Amino acid sequence: MKRVRLTVAYDGTNYHGWQIQDNGNTIEAELNRALSDLFEEKIEVIGASRTDAGVHALGNVAVFDTESPMASSKISYALNQRLPEDIRIQKSEEVPADWHPRHCESRKTYEYRIYRGAFPMPVKRLYSHFVYHPLDVEKMREAAAYLEGKHDFKSFCQAGAQVESTVRILYLLLVEEQGADLVIRVCGSGFLYNMVRIIVGTLLEVGQGKRDPETMAELLAACDRSAAGPTAPARGLTLIKYEFL
Amino acid sequence: MKRVRLTVAYDGTNYHGWQIQDNGNTIEAELNRALSDLFEEKIEVIGASRTDAGVHALGNVAVFDTESPMASSKISYALNQRLPEDIRIQKSEEVPADWHPRHCESRKTYEYRIYRGAFPMPVKRLYSHFVYHPLDVEKMREAAAYLEGKHDFKSFCQAGAQVESTVRILYLLLVEEQGADLVIRVCGSGFLYNMVRIIVGTLLEVGQGKRDPETMAELLAACDRSAAGPTAPARGLTLIKYEFL
Repeated sequence: MKRVRLTVAYDGTNYHGWQIQDNGNTIEAELNRALSDLFEEKIEVIGASRTDAGVHALGNVAVFDTESPMASSKISYALNQRLPEDIRIQKSEEVPADWHPRHCESRKTYEYRIYRGAFPMPVKRLYSHFVYHPLDVEKMREAAAYLEGKHDFKSFCQAGAQVESTVRILYLLLVEEQGADLVIRVCGSGFLYNMVRIIVGTLLEVGQGKRDPETMAELLAACDRSAAGPTAPARGLTLIKYEFL
Repeated sequence: MKRVRLTVAYDGTNYHGWQIQDNGNTIEAELNRALSDLFEEKIEVIGASRTDAGVHALGNVAVFDTESPMASSKISYALNQRLPEDIRIQKSEEVPADWHPRHCESRKTYEYRIYRGAFPMPVKRLYSHFVYHPLDVEKMREAAAYLEGKHDFKSFCQAGAQVESTVRILYLLLVEEQGADLVIRVCGSGFLYNMVRIIVGTLLEVGQGKRDPETMAELLAACDRSAAGPTAPARGLTLIKYEFL
């Protein structure tokens, strides 16, 4: 028996997120189907991040166990033949039998893309959030600086989510201009449910002048979801990479 | 009666190109439908570039005539309400009644995007052509330099296309690296049928070492489509802008 780690890229547009569910197709279900087909045995993956419906990934991570003699590095090629074109394995490699993607220290990087224009741009619509209000990028950067570091992010966690602790470390929260795009890049030890999208929704309110950057300190202190901004739409969010430490 | 010019952006993935045809939906048909619905009269646009199935645009151009008193600059907003989300008018403005988008001097800019990786990247698949061979970018640039300027591009025109002259001016043909993407940017007075995609297919052969950059001169001189490389896939091509001189 060996454990194989997959680096998984996908376009989330047509999926009900990562995790298997009754109503609607998911990335996890497609992987299990393709793996079970390839190895002719029932295989179930363990995923690192259970991304939401509509969220994309360049590098999510999953593991599975198999007795197959197929070289681990070749599994990516065989698996991609059996997956729809909006899911593609980027790498397959053997890991220790007890390695678990959610039980080890890791650093995750997400990007949230905002397209600023007078009108939506069709070729950008699936991978960015369209905003026609002018945005004060400097103020968004000031607000972002308050959120970097170790904090209780309860205000930025979808209400009702069950977690032991809402303390997380944000190593980095950058607001980058790339032409007409504004890219919010975030790297952290882990994220609460909808945390990145609530941070983005809140920074957008700052950019529109509805909130002052200085209010971020009291917003963190409030530990109350209703004190933060709205959850930004899923289509703008992409899981860029996992780094295991 | 006034003539209105539209700047039209679209995602070509789900269309059989610009021009109206019997089997399959087209950009032109959607525009005619939305305009006729908006103004409650039969309206037919005249388009600048009849892009092929699967080709995208940030700024194609079309004109139409109407007696409507609606302010020309507001038509974009009203029209976008009636168009599918993969077509969006970027600008509407009045032009002289005899202005015709194909009967005036113009400069057109296209970009062809190539994604270089070990495996296809799902979020890039609709707007780029995936190439896993290593590409010699310097050699592609050398070859591109031969094609800039005024030439008879008959070798780069789909066989059977009916045109009076196959001479065109390429103001610019650049091969730019943008991370894992290779972007071929071309600006010219006009393009023959499939010309950009045949140029890209030929440059890709140069990049793979199948042709030497120096052979571009004899390829132009041959005036024979079969002497050039294959037609690169439509999905990588985007019409960036029209400039009327």
